[in-house]
Amino acid sequence: MLKYQQIAADIEQEIVDKDLQQGDKLPVLDAFMAQFDVSKSTITKALDLLEKKGIVYQVRGSGIFVRRHKRRGYISLLSNQGFKKELDGFQITSEVLALDIRRPTAEAARNLAVNPEESVYYVKRVRYINGQTLCIEESYYNKSVVSYLNNEIVSESIFNYISDALGLNIGFSDLYFNVGKINKKEAELLRLPDASPGLFMEQIFHLTNGQPFDFSKITYNYEQSQFFIQANNYFL
Amino acid sequence: MLKYQQIAADIEQEIVDKDLQQGDKLPVLDAFMAQFDVSKSTITKALDLLEKKGIVYQVRGSGIFVRRHKRRGYISLLSNQGFKKELDGFQITSEVLALDIRRPTAEAARNLAVNPEESVYYVKRVRYINGQTLCIEESYYNKSVVSYLNNEIVSESIFNYISDALGLNIGFSDLYFNVGKINKKEAELLRLPDASPGLFMEQIFHLTNGQPFDFSKITYNYEQSQFFIQANNYFL
Repeated sequence: MLKYQQIAADIEQEIVDKDLQQGDKLPVLDAFMAQFDVSKSTITKALDLLEKKGIVYQVRGSGIFVRRHKRRGYISLLSNQGFKKELDGFQITSEVLALDIRRPTAEAARNLAVNPEESVYYVKRVRYINGQTLCIEESYYNKSVVSYLNNEIVSESIFNYISDALGLNIGFSDLYFNVGKINKKEAELLRLPDASPGLFMEQIFHLTNGQPFDFSKITYNYEQSQFFIQANNYFL
Repeated sequence: MLKYQQIAADIEQEIVDKDLQQGDKLPVLDAFMAQFDVSKSTITKALDLLEKKGIVYQVRGSGIFVRRHKRRGYISLLSNQGFKKELDGFQITSEVLALDIRRPTAEAARNLAVNPEESVYYVKRVRYINGQTLCIEESYYNKSVVSYLNNEIVSESIFNYISDALGLNIGFSDLYFNVGKINKKEAELLRLPDASPGLFMEQIFHLTNGQPFDFSKITYNYEQSQFFIQANNYFL
């Protein structure tokens, strides 16, 4: 973690610790410079990062303010960290239904930009939140990137393993979703009545070099899942 | 629009016109500087904006590449532009069910940070895509910000009116959603069977100065709506 990232994390933690609310004004740059004993440009980079993350907003000529409409138990769709961090305070567990090496589906091959003849890791899990079903997750991993997986790894956070053990840099993701009715098999796994509403998501994760490495299809239990997004207006 | 924003828009248009694909490499900075006859810092700002918008990704030491997984007909949840621009090529129309000045609900007052005794504009619309119901939208506008609305305005894009006619700067938004079953009234308006799946969204729009001005509750027709998000990894 770079210096400005660490400072951003520290400021974010301070906002939580002091229970600051939406619209509360943060200290001026000089105060932060003194507090962290760093240059103005480092503080500016830290605050820019916090703005991109939706933690603060900057009003020209007026100051920096807390942005914090987050509601507890909502899953952030802009975080690439997986649930573990997102749903802090909730107990997230996984049941592994499948873990093998296989040919990708045509859809998975296309989204991973791999040859359909190339083998990929396939993982199917049911994830639980406080003992209730949260979602069914089917993931295809590019084997030339994620070279090894085992049962122990996929029972925990695969993303922690990918960044910590494999040392890969997780970059951007593309996410698509729509709403529909779950089928009989999905209903059984989620322990819901057949044809219940479901949120169907597809997510493609890329390394910072642009290579897609994970194509996942996730079906959410509508009774256990709620989502939030903090959007910036870059769309002038 | 500032110079770098215009250049960003031009580069984005070029990507579309040339039908560039995900992973295609863009020209080097020098080439862009020559093409637009501007300084390196202006080009850098334009490319940073495009990266924030999810149009390109930059790989250190390697170049700038096209990011373009967008699927046609998907609604972007990071755009604050409303559907009109988002669903370019689709015909979006609105039926106004209500337009009046009233006391906000407790929920609306809280989300708009207004006094519950203060009057707000209330607008209820059904929005159509190519003649099919797309969503039911109930919006509360802070009257001290959005001082005037009429039937003609709310039949079209309220956001265009707010930025163009009122000259307000639309900033960030907070968005929450979950999935459930629509009730009888919603089913009638959306022309769906009772208890069909539905996507329920709440969105709070703020000015660039942080003031919330629009609290909207939107119920989507699950058969007509699909969504996408291009997320950056600011979450190290």
